[in-house]
Amino acid sequence: MKLEDLRVDGTRLRQSLEQMAKIGATAGGGVQRLALSDEDREARDLFVSWLKELDLTVTVDQMGNIFGRRPGTRDELAPITSGSHVDSQPKGGRFDGILGVLSMLEVMRTLHDHKVQTERPIVIVDWTNEEGSRFAPAMVSSGVWAGALELDWAYGRTDINGKRQGDELERIGYQGDVPCKHSPVHAYYEVHIEQGPVLEREHKTIGAPKGILCLHWYDIYLEGEANQVGPTPMEGRHDALCAAAEMVLAVNELPAKMGGNMVATVGEIQNEPNSRNIIPDKVHFTVDIRSWDDDLALRSWDDLKQGFETIAKRRGCPIRIEETWRVQHSPFDERLVQRVMDNAEAIGYPALRMVSGAGHDASYANQVCPTCMIFVPSVGGRSHVEVEETSWEDCEAGANVLLHCVLQSAAES
Amino acid sequence: MKLEDLRVDGTRLRQSLEQMAKIGATAGGGVQRLALSDEDREARDLFVSWLKELDLTVTVDQMGNIFGRRPGTRDELAPITSGSHVDSQPKGGRFDGILGVLSMLEVMRTLHDHKVQTERPIVIVDWTNEEGSRFAPAMVSSGVWAGALELDWAYGRTDINGKRQGDELERIGYQGDVPCKHSPVHAYYEVHIEQGPVLEREHKTIGAPKGILCLHWYDIYLEGEANQVGPTPMEGRHDALCAAAEMVLAVNELPAKMGGNMVATVGEIQNEPNSRNIIPDKVHFTVDIRSWDDDLALRSWDDLKQGFETIAKRRGCPIRIEETWRVQHSPFDERLVQRVMDNAEAIGYPALRMVSGAGHDASYANQVCPTCMIFVPSVGGRSHVEVEETSWEDCEAGANVLLHCVLQSAAES
Repeated sequence: MKLEDLRVDGTRLRQSLEQMAKIGATAGGGVQRLALSDEDREARDLFVSWLKELDLTVTVDQMGNIFGRRPGTRDELAPITSGSHVDSQPKGGRFDGILGVLSMLEVMRTLHDHKVQTERPIVIVDWTNEEGSRFAPAMVSSGVWAGALELDWAYGRTDINGKRQGDELERIGYQGDVPCKHSPVHAYYEVHIEQGPVLEREHKTIGAPKGILCLHWYDIYLEGEANQVGPTPMEGRHDALCAAAEMVLAVNELPAKMGGNMVATVGEIQNEPNSRNIIPDKVHFTVDIRSWDDDLALRSWDDLKQGFETIAKRRGCPIRIEETWRVQHSPFDERLVQRVMDNAEAIGYPALRMVSGAGHDASYANQVCPTCMIFVPSVGGRSHVEVEETSWEDCEAGANVLLHCVLQSAAES
Repeated sequence: MKLEDLRVDGTRLRQSLEQMAKIGATAGGGVQRLALSDEDREARDLFVSWLKELDLTVTVDQMGNIFGRRPGTRDELAPITSGSHVDSQPKGGRFDGILGVLSMLEVMRTLHDHKVQTERPIVIVDWTNEEGSRFAPAMVSSGVWAGALELDWAYGRTDINGKRQGDELERIGYQGDVPCKHSPVHAYYEVHIEQGPVLEREHKTIGAPKGILCLHWYDIYLEGEANQVGPTPMEGRHDALCAAAEMVLAVNELPAKMGGNMVATVGEIQNEPNSRNIIPDKVHFTVDIRSWDDDLALRSWDDLKQGFETIAKRRGCPIRIEETWRVQHSPFDERLVQRVMDNAEAIGYPALRMVSGAGHDASYANQVCPTCMIFVPSVGGRSHVEVEETSWEDCEAGANVLLHCVLQSAAES
């Protein structure tokens, strides 16, 4: 068989996904495998047992990242690495993260079955605590690996019960002694569900994100004047919730107003005293702006901020604005992105260049090596929910594209 | 001295208000005397000691309402009754409630000083738990007295720690054995701070509310579709918070749109999952509509509801509406209202016919006897806050108007 005709075993991939989905299975059809929980350990143990069946060299680093290495004929060269994460959101889905891990496992199994020898070594990885929902922040272990975050700081992060991430790593037996530090990687790929509706809407099977959007977070604090609602006429009120409502709509209308590709969202709001017969006098809400175009996001924020100040002034509600977090957009390696498109076309999958609106471990990998991702459709665009769904055919398609991307990168001298 | 030249002692009224304000005094200059707390007991003890100095006949009923009775020359006739409440909001002010109690005490003292004999007996009252902030609902004891609420039900109401109102009444020693049941009252007056900005704005000293506004409460529940904000384009989102924001503004604009005298407020909102990077999929908020015109309030609600349904449909966010509570407007006795205006004019206080936006014990009294209220200005319209303020001159003015209203009613055969 010619190497370009090689395909993964879709049935085996499905079986592995189904077996893994039993660990932390929820009544609603999803999974709950919080980072460093007993379910995370169980999933890791199963994953490691599968790596050992393939005679991979398994190492665990100080952050609990698990690597499985398959030697190359020129084993001194930098490897091709791919993977994602086995942890999940609370009441999360059966595909987010784990699909990227098991797609690469299926690639490893396919190479093993067909006794394919590659020039470069190939590495599969499970990154610890991608979700960040038990220990904030997200993507912490790829962050330490890439040198963007400090190991001790990561160890010290605590969950809602005050448990330290470092202690929980040790408790589940996955605090390795290999330094958590990147060494040269020739190419990093990550298969992931899209988590949005674009591929489904465009009837595409494969998405090739050209990178990850910039991410700007803001926190807005408004003050009004609390009064009994009955005796207080409408004229002269300083209602902080009304001011916030105008601002929520301004955020929602911002992308259409500014043009260009951007999303803007208010996800969180707190209202005080939050009593049905008292005019609200304290409101806090968040703004999340993402775009491929950092300048557009900044210009939009300037426009929005000006609008906020006008609303606050008109309603007599003093405003305080915090610019909480800004991450610039992160373009993936153009050669690798094109390779994803080319392989999808070669195999016969409709594919689309797009962007990633969410962060992934690939974001940190992208800081230290040529990186790209392979997206497959999310049914209804849903993710981080129990009904998260991707068809088995699309899972198989993602793994086939990954297989050939890995093979081509591994053949580069 | 002619009876119409009789005036209260403003200095003594101020001293009594200041002495009472020490009980439950807060660092911010207000008071906290939650119903049936130790502070409430202490305030009651002081109040009762003052009643006894005037040789009033003190009785305590089953709900802890305290009555002090001054005999009339025709003691078999129905009495003139006036009072309010000594309990306060958490971190409340020094005037709400207690001003009505101590204004009537000052009237009693003035009659006592001048050995005025009235035909009808005169009764001062402190109603238990007007605020309802420790045990809901508000105005519970005037409600039982008026026959609108059941005694056993009132006893069974619990605070946030599960303590029963009946048990706490007993604990502080104010569960009397006189039945809590109204007998004929010839006229009921209640002095109260306005709790709104109208008198101050109009430069008036006395307000004569023609009654209490109708009160309509609604609860709105919206559903959206939760998704990761990054990968979910603006088109096709079902953002429950954006739908709610439009509705909050529709409520705020309703009075201007419908014309007529009305207030409409959203005081409370809950948002889920309330996470900065997830599109909100569940929002609950409240609507409070008050007007003198019950039909206007109902027509406005019909208009608002239709608007809500249009917004919900356009945003693809299913809506559920609960019509939680409706109380019709409650007109006071026109003869008594005119008497308040006439006495203010006779003494030389600028006065204004108005409405009461808030409920008071006078609402329940109004169900069983001729009733009206005497409002004095709230500085800045503020109430239920520690900075609640009324000038000593205005307090004295309210008591003087009350004095002559009581004298005239007590002279009616």
